[in-house]
Amino acid sequence: MDFIKNPRAIEEKSMDLIDPFISDIDLTPEEVTVYSRMIHASGDVDYGHLIRTSEGAVEAGIKALAGGCNIYCDVNMVKAGINKRALSALGGEVFCRVADPEIARIAKEKNIARSMAAMNSFGTDLNGSIIAVGNAPTALYEAIRMVEEDGIRPALIIGIPVGFVGAADSKEQLVRRAPCPYITVRGTKGGSSIVASCVNALMYNLVKRDNMLYVQGKK
Amino acid sequence: MDFIKNPRAIEEKSMDLIDPFISDIDLTPEEVTVYSRMIHASGDVDYGHLIRTSEGAVEAGIKALAGGCNIYCDVNMVKAGINKRALSALGGEVFCRVADPEIARIAKEKNIARSMAAMNSFGTDLNGSIIAVGNAPTALYEAIRMVEEDGIRPALIIGIPVGFVGAADSKEQLVRRAPCPYITVRGTKGGSSIVASCVNALMYNLVKRDNMLYVQGKK
Repeated sequence: MDFIKNPRAIEEKSMDLIDPFISDIDLTPEEVTVYSRMIHASGDVDYGHLIRTSEGAVEAGIKALAGGCNIYCDVNMVKAGINKRALSALGGEVFCRVADPEIARIAKEKNIARSMAAMNSFGTDLNGSIIAVGNAPTALYEAIRMVEEDGIRPALIIGIPVGFVGAADSKEQLVRRAPCPYITVRGTKGGSSIVASCVNALMYNLVKRDNMLYVQGKK
Repeated sequence: MDFIKNPRAIEEKSMDLIDPFISDIDLTPEEVTVYSRMIHASGDVDYGHLIRTSEGAVEAGIKALAGGCNIYCDVNMVKAGINKRALSALGGEVFCRVADPEIARIAKEKNIARSMAAMNSFGTDLNGSIIAVGNAPTALYEAIRMVEEDGIRPALIIGIPVGFVGAADSKEQLVRRAPCPYITVRGTKGGSSIVASCVNALMYNLVKRDNMLYVQGKK
């Protein structure tokens, strides 16, 4: 069979093919890496015009990662999709608590979604971190609430729950309230793969994907 | 904030909203569950007309799962997205070897992609199983080759790599060659979330999502 066996060659060619679909958008070079990888992860060029980032959000995310920030996810699929070698090379860790028995107990006691209880449980650990929500609108709403009401200060919220109920509204709230730097996607589209690809794109501005021998500027 | 806090209520409402977008397609009730959940996982109603299943593929997958079949994935994100409680209630397990050091060694030695080496390493364990490919065209090509050349007999291939190079062609090959029952998506779209949602949809025909107290027909 005639196909490209080298994953890196596949990826580079993909990025070239995606380029024309975002060339009409006014983006910084760092934003281009994020947009491209999110389109790459969805196979859907429509993302180019659906992604919304607050001014400087991509740069804020990269800066936080360069400083070794942690990442807090709503679901284990986002955690699974994040390049842990790259994150570890930068000094960060990734956390997800939605499947913890303790969270299930709290959620039941308070009669709230587990995703919401899990987000809430991170508390002030979220300061300076990246919050990555790929599935649960309730987790995103809770993150927004914690910024607005509890004074939590994440470096960046990547909030891209997917679906037809709650998801679009939760993302619209993120854009309207803009509680802190954010990256999102308007409408129903999104999900864990997209969020993980966004986190990875931010990191690949700092570390080489394949070999983690150096961190840019820290060689 | 005014939103639905019950994830199950959100999901049921989602399925109702998705229904009009697939009502023009001639589907069995089981196929409806699969199509709906794949649209739910992508937030993209275009999937309705992009999904391709071979005749009886959905039923073949359900039957295999009812018999306790295992699931073999190309990447850990697919594994992370599969409902393990449901799978375990049915008697199956999920495997992914792409991150194994032994696979890395073999891939390097043979100068092939790790995804390909990982798929190949499953060998005859794939007989009667469900192969779930969400990321790597090379894994899907290898699975097709193993059926055609090595006489491997999976119950179902869910082959939905995402992307702009290799992915669309690998899925087109799956449709044209139809080496065994298959579920795929034409074009560039797809990915791990979509594949995991497809596996889960098949299982939810047999087990209740939330409580695994019974397997349908085996109460």
